[in-house]
Order: sequence, then C-alpha cells, then structure tokens
Amino acid sequence: MTRVDLNADMGESFGPWKMGDDDSLLKIITSANIACGFHAGDPDVMAKTMALAAENGVGIGAHPGFPDLQGFGRRNMKVPHASLRNMVRYQLGAALGMARAVGAEVRHLKLHGALANMCSVDQDMARACYQGALDVDPDIIIMVLAVTKQEQAARELGCKWVGEIFADRAYNDDGTLVDRSLPGAVIHDPEVAGPRILEMVSAGAIITESGRHLETSIDTICLHGDGPTAVQIARSVRSCLEEGGVEVKVFER
Amino acid sequence: MTRVDLNADMGESFGPWKMGDDDSLLKIITSANIACGFHAGDPDVMAKTMALAAENGVGIGAHPGFPDLQGFGRRNMKVPHASLRNMVRYQLGAALGMARAVGAEVRHLKLHGALANMCSVDQDMARACYQGALDVDPDIIIMVLAVTKQEQAARELGCKWVGEIFADRAYNDDGTLVDRSLPGAVIHDPEVAGPRILEMVSAGAIITESGRHLETSIDTICLHGDGPTAVQIARSVRSCLEEGGVEVKVFER
Amino acid sequence: MTRVDLNADMGESFGPWKMGDDDSLLKIITSANIACGFHAGDPDVMAKTMALAAENGVGIGAHPGFPDLQGFGRRNMKVPHASLRNMVRYQLGAALGMARAVGAEVRHLKLHGALANMCSVDQDMARACYQGALDVDPDIIIMVLAVTKQEQAARELGCKWVGEIFADRAYNDDGTLVDRSLPGAVIHDPEVAGPRILEMVSAGAIITESGRHLETSIDTICLHGDGPTAVQIARSVRSCLEEGGVEVKVFER
Amino acid sequence: MTRVDLNADMGESFGPWKMGDDDSLLKIITSANIACGFHAGDPDVMAKTMALAAENGVGIGAHPGFPDLQGFGRRNMKVPHASLRNMVRYQLGAALGMARAVGAEVRHLKLHGALANMCSVDQDMARACYQGALDVDPDIIIMVLAVTKQEQAARELGCKWVGEIFADRAYNDDGTLVDRSLPGAVIHDPEVAGPRILEMVSAGAIITESGRHLETSIDTICLHGDGPTAVQIARSVRSCLEEGGVEVKVFER
Repeated sequence: MTRVDLNADMGESFGPWKMGDDDSLLKIITSANIACGFHAGDPDVMAKTMALAAENGVGIGAHPGFPDLQGFGRRNMKVPHASLRNMVRYQLGAALGMARAVGAEVRHLKLHGALANMCSVDQDMARACYQGALDVDPDIIIMVLAVTKQEQAARELGCKWVGEIFADRAYNDDGTLVDRSLPGAVIHDPEVAGPRILEMVSAGAIITESGRHLETSIDTICLHGDGPTAVQIARSVRSCLEEGGVEVKVFER
Repeated sequence: MTRVDLNADMGESFGPWKMGDDDSLLKIITSANIACGFHAGDPDVMAKTMALAAENGVGIGAHPGFPDLQGFGRRNMKVPHASLRNMVRYQLGAALGMARAVGAEVRHLKLHGALANMCSVDQDMARACYQGALDVDPDIIIMVLAVTKQEQAARELGCKWVGEIFADRAYNDDGTLVDRSLPGAVIHDPEVAGPRILEMVSAGAIITESGRHLETSIDTICLHGDGPTAVQIARSVRSCLEEGGVEVKVFER
Repeated sequence: MTRVDLNADMGESFGPWKMGDDDSLLKIITSANIACGFHAGDPDVMAKTMALAAENGVGIGAHPGFPDLQGFGRRNMKVPHASLRNMVRYQLGAALGMARAVGAEVRHLKLHGALANMCSVDQDMARACYQGALDVDPDIIIMVLAVTKQEQAARELGCKWVGEIFADRAYNDDGTLVDRSLPGAVIHDPEVAGPRILEMVSAGAIITESGRHLETSIDTICLHGDGPTAVQIARSVRSCLEEGGVEVKVFER
Repeated sequence: MTRVDLNADMGESFGPWKMGDDDSLLKIITSANIACGFHAGDPDVMAKTMALAAENGVGIGAHPGFPDLQGFGRRNMKVPHASLRNMVRYQLGAALGMARAVGAEVRHLKLHGALANMCSVDQDMARACYQGALDVDPDIIIMVLAVTKQEQAARELGCKWVGEIFADRAYNDDGTLVDRSLPGAVIHDPEVAGPRILEMVSAGAIITESGRHLETSIDTICLHGDGPTAVQIARSVRSCLEEGGVEVKVFER
C-alpha cells in the first residue's frame, strides 16, 4: 500500500505574537516542523507546540533557520559553512532538549526559509547543515526538497532522508518551482490541490506544468498553514489521498 | 583523601568579541561552566570552547543565563517560573547538542549572573530552573552556591548536586558574601587566596570574616578569569590545595 | 470648553507578526504611542505606522521600552539609571529620525510596559528616563500616569507633561490601579466605560472604586487596542465625551 | 593647500565586550564612524564614544550596518530596498539622538561591513541606503568608497559626499581592492603606508598595484584600529601627510 506523510511548519509564534493555526493543522498532518528560536519560536512556544504535537500523535521535527527574527529567516545570509554547521547543531540540540523535557522525541530535521532555499541550489551548503544535524544525532531523518541539491547532499552523506514535494506549488521540468510571479505558480483551489497530489503520489513522480513526470521519492507532502485556503487545501489533500487508497502516516524511523 | 573540583566560567566570547583567558584557565581548572548563547557565547564559541575543554580533560557544564547580551546576564529580570524552566531546558538542550557534536559530554549545570544571584535567595525560582535542567537530563549534576537557597532547592528536588564556594570572596556569618563595597570583600592577593581556601576545604566549612565555621559540602571552588591577578589566584589555589594534600579532581558523575 | 486627548499604543507588530488593530484605532484616537524597536516594532513597522498616524492627523509619540522582544517589554529589568537614560535617548532618537523621514513629527514620549510600571513607583528611575528624553528634545511632552511617581518626576524636571488615566481600569483610593485579579478591576463593558470617563474628565479627577475624587490633570485617556471589546470601548469613550461637550483633540505642543 | 580627513571606525564595543583602541585613534583621526547598535555598539557605548570624539574635536559619523551582532555586520544579507532604507533611517536617527544628548553633532554617514561591500558593487542598493540617510538629514555628508558604485549612487542623488580610500589596501586597475588572499593586498608596514598615501593624496589619484593613476576625489583616508601595527600605520600616515604639506583636517560641512 502506498504511504505518505503530511508535514507543516509549526510553532512560529514568538513572545506575544501569534502565527498560524497550529491546532487545526495538527489534526491533519502527521509531521510538524517546529521552529527553534532563531527565525521564530521561543522556549515557551517550543515547549507548548511540542507537547501539542505529541498529544496529537504527530511526529516532531526540528526546523532550524537563519538568526533573523525580523526577517523571519527569509532573507538570504552568507554564513561560513563552519558556522552553519554549528548553527544547526545548536538549534537541533535545543529542540532535542525541549522535546525530552515534554516527553516527546525529535524524529526529523527540515531547513527553514532562506536557509532551505539556498541549500536547495548549493549542495556544499546543504551538506554543512545536514552534517551539523548528524553530528548531534546520527539517526535523525533529514527531510529534503525532492530532486534538489538538498537531496543530493543527503545522498552524499549516506544518511536517512525523506523526500518532500509541495502541495500548492507548480513545478518546472527541471524540478524547480514555477516562479511565484507567474500564473498558476501557487495553487489556491482545494479542489485542484488534492487530486493533483494524489496523482503525483500514485505515480511516484513530480508532475510538471508541462505534464512531464520526474520520478522521485515522495515521502512527505508539505502543507502550509497560512493563506485563506490553507487549512482547506490541507484537508483536501488528506482526504483525496485516503480516498485514493494512500495511507497517510508518519514515515518510519 | 580530601578532594575538590576547581571551576570557572568559560566560552564568554561572542561573535567578534573576545572575553577571558580560557586557554590559561583550562590548564588549572577541572570543570568549565560554558555560556549557552543567551548572555554570552554563540554556537561557534560553544563548539570551540567545548572541544578545548575536552582536550584538556576538563569537565563541561552548561551555564545558562538571562536572555540579555548587552547586560551580560547581569541585570535582574522578573521572568515567570514556567518561562525560566523553558529557558533552562532550551539552553541545556543546546549545550548537550553542541557537546555531542564535538564528542564531549555535559556533566553539570550552573546558573549564571543575575539568574544565579536571584536563585541564591529565592528557593522557588531556583527550583524552577533546576527542574528545567532535570527535565532534560535527570542525571545532570547541579552546581549550587553552598548554604544558599540554591542548595536548598537542589536538596528539595533530591537531585545530584555539588556545593561551591568562591576563591576570592569574603563571607558573612550567615553565609552570604561580604558586600563588594566593603574593604576585604574581594581577595586580590594570590598569597592570601590559596592558603585561605586550603583551610576551608580542610575544615569542610566556610570560614567567615569573623572566624566562624559554617560546615558545608565544599565540592568545588569557583575561580575567576578576569581581573589582573585572576590567573595567579587560580594557580595559587590549585598549588596550595595540592601541596596541602587535597586532590584536585573533577567531581564524580 | 473642556478638552481631552485619546491615546493608544500602536506599531506593536514585529517582522512577520501582526499585533493590534491600528487602522481602526487611528480613526478614534488623537495621539499614538509608537513602539521603538526594543520591545516591539521594527524600522519598517515604525515607518508605516508613523505615516498612517500622520495621514489620520493623529499626534505621534515615542514609546520606548525594555530591550526584551520575547517578553514584549513586560518583564521587569533592573537597569542602571545611566543605561536607562541612554536607552531612552536611543529609542527617541530613532523615532525622531523615522518620523522626519516620513514627514511627520514626534510630539510626546510615553514609557511602555514594565518600564512604565517600575517608573510609576520609582521617581528616580522615572527621572532618569525622562531626562534621557529631554536630552534629545527639550520640548518633548512627557505623558505620565497621573498621580504616580511618573508625574512627580516630570514636575521635578520642570518639563512639559500631560497626565493620563486609563479608560478601562478601576482605581484605588491612593491612585494606584485595582489589582487585575480583583472583580471589577478591568472594565469590559463599553456602556460603562464611556460615561465613567466623561464623569472623571468633567470632574477633573480620578473617581476611585469607593467614590473618592482624586483631583488631577486629566489631559489624555489611555485606550487599548486588544481585548474583544477594545475598539467598542474606544468608540464609546469618544462619543460619550463628545456628546458630553468635551472636545476630543490632541494636546497642544 | 591640499587637505584631507582621516577616518576610522569607533564605538565597536558591545555590552561587556571591548573592541578597538578608540582612545589612541581619537588622537590621530579627524572623523569617527560610530556603530549604531545593529552590528556593534549599544546606547551606552554610543554615548561614551560620541562624547569622547567631541572632546577630541573629532567629527562624528553614523556607521549603520546589518542587524547581525554575531556576524559583526560582515555577513551579506539580502534585504529588500525599502527595508534597507528604513534600517538606515532608524540607525541614523538613533545616532542623531545620542549625539544631541551629549552635545555633539553627526556630520557624516558611512556604511559598515557587508552592507558597504554590497553597496560598492550595487548602485541601486547604495542609493536605497543613502536615500534613507537623506530622508532623515538632507545635509548629511555621505562618505563613499571612491570610484565604486557607492560614489555613483551619491552623484546620482546629488547629495553632499566625500570620497574615501584605504590606507592599508592595494588597488587593482579597475579601482577594486586586491583580494586579501594575494600577496601585498594588505599593507602592514607603517614605513610603506605613510609615503604611499601621501603620494596618492598629492596626485589626487588612487595609484594601483601596476602604477596606474585613477583620478578621484580623495577627501578622507580610512584607517583601521585593529591589527598589530594599526595605530603605528595611522600615526605614520598622519605624520607623512603633514610633513608632505597636506593639511589633515575634517572635511567642511
């Protein structure tokens, strides 16, 4: 039976500021990527979010980002690889500590925002980050953007990894995302998103705008928590997958 | 044979700014309290300092503080106990991660600066912090200021702890430190510091200004890295202890 | 004709995180206290909020706070007076620069959160903060909590000041606020808030829970932007005042 | 009589951490670029440094940088131009406020670190930053790296500007700096630095490694405060210029 995980970013509140609808998404997803305090999240938010994820039986992942709260980790920064490695070690360590404190477990790691974007086109940079994670926990599962340099870095390191595609983004023939400024780049219609993902998961391939199939390991689908139709898209994806005979379940460790 | 540990704060550089003479002190001490990024230290400094401590066979401790870089964690902050607990969990988690990444081990935890001062007179606050540490690692050794509320909190929690006295501070009869503004409050003369500490360790008691003996568990001596005679005082304390037949060695775990 | 200003805190978003309903409140108030980047606000938020205030003909004030984003400036910090003074100078300077850049003017200064609370009971601390503001702009109007040490500090300095009372808080006979934990401490009912404030403004006095009148200079009423009935209370206060023959207008400079 | 200004970065301490030998350099230079709290400096450091500069009759400049303390503003960040503009407005505003508070004046603005480097090759980015400064003070003098995109941006804006060259760096024929990894890129010998700068100032041109003359406006020489021979180089430059008949004086406003 085909099987897939659904993941979303969580715990992106900070101090008095709230972000996202974590409660609703935790009923739909199977893995949560939890911010580690550098681009969002703080120790209180992390503790609360991890406890909530554990209560909902959702797998927990560390979601490290650049040290840039104002920019929410979305501004590219040029950081030496040795520092990147330490930056990931630190954030994963903090996440492991917080998880242990609330009786939960960190299963995977996914890079956030600009850090993720830069690593999806720079294999050396991705390797530095992933090496930092493996230094702390050699069994951590690295969640990579399928068919990018992130995937190649994980393969090169020979570590455990799972491949991810986006529920709401159109793909080019080379596996990159269609630029947000182009029509159809972002899928807003829940009626479209669900069947489309079922088709890709069933095919074991990213299906591009032009209809080309890029065979890859689709282990997890990235859902978003923001946007007017985000939760609806998430529900549509989950129900389409289940009705299509795909088991929605967190990946094995 | 009497035995005692020597500890000092380390890894208090930040980004481009250097602080302390870690290299010299690591030749003298047996335990290092390493800043965790909130009041000083950053992931690069932590990685480097931990690796250096491990090379020198020095025991590693997490040294959490208030989130106040400009104030170096020396400004009192009124933080709810639940947040204090999460703050310690986070910093200890980060320290554990960094240590594991460089092949080292975190053995103990000591509070820094204003956080330590406030906890030395507020048992509930101390307990919140220590509980946070124990949530992450139930076997961590809590380093407490002897005869203060810190010690009482550790006793109340029933956790592993070691008692600490200062090498360079005079004590009042109630076990508090003589106010810095008074003459003789701080010992600057290495010739005085060494024999004085040997006497206390041999007596198993803090010897106050008035000559009174306060029996307590003197497991570790706090040395400072700053001040013109700091390293000399550290050397004097170590050699006096060794010549006096006291074994200078990190505490058991 | 009696006249009063209505003020509210604004510009408390940060980076990607939104806070408050600034657009609605700017239609009701006459003075905006704008966060300066230490406890909330960032340069982008400040620029946007100041431009919006100016468009609405609302007077702009700097709203400095403790350097504590996670705690939103609501956690007491013990900061030396010389540093407090510099902290206020810096934040007011930044506010003046941002205002000039968008063609607006900073007319007043009001302390935020824990900084304000501490200064309402510590005249020396209040004076240090206000002195910092006057160092930068001797003509700035200091907005003080009426009948507190803030007011006394402003009187002592001989600077321009305006006295403030809260629209939604009950007062004790000594002019302090009724503790939030007690019934009736916070007024949630717009039907109650409006007439009550009209009565106080007409009387030129704070009217306490017991009915006692504390004569004081009521130059401005503090409205809140959060809470389920906040905007309704603000509207009720404004319309009651206007219907009661009180002119609602920003204070003279 | 030929005339030139000597500038150096100052006020780069932060909290408990010291950096640079400001006292020595203030005896040699005529303009100080003072960090504004984003990459270094804090309100206390700014107040102290500005007062010290004023006492020494040294002109004060704002020295804004990226919001990156750990990286000391030396890590490239990709920030939208509107945010850059606000970032500069905020930092210049803060500097103006601090200066006014200590009875001093901000005369110029120079970009720091990675922000400066990026703007030296990106005219649009430089213009966004400089526009931010001019929004706050239309009379501020922009200090630009001569013959770079910084200079072109200042020319385009039609604002007051002064051109700067480095005392200790070798130049390529296109006006860029010789890469630090190449031999001779950095001049460490005070005996070499002084005469070399006198030659350039006298010629009114950057003299490149190959001996080519790039005519430009040399209004100010950048001296460094770090490195083993920094203060000696600064003294050598100043005395060579004076002995060579060049007046060393802050630029007119």
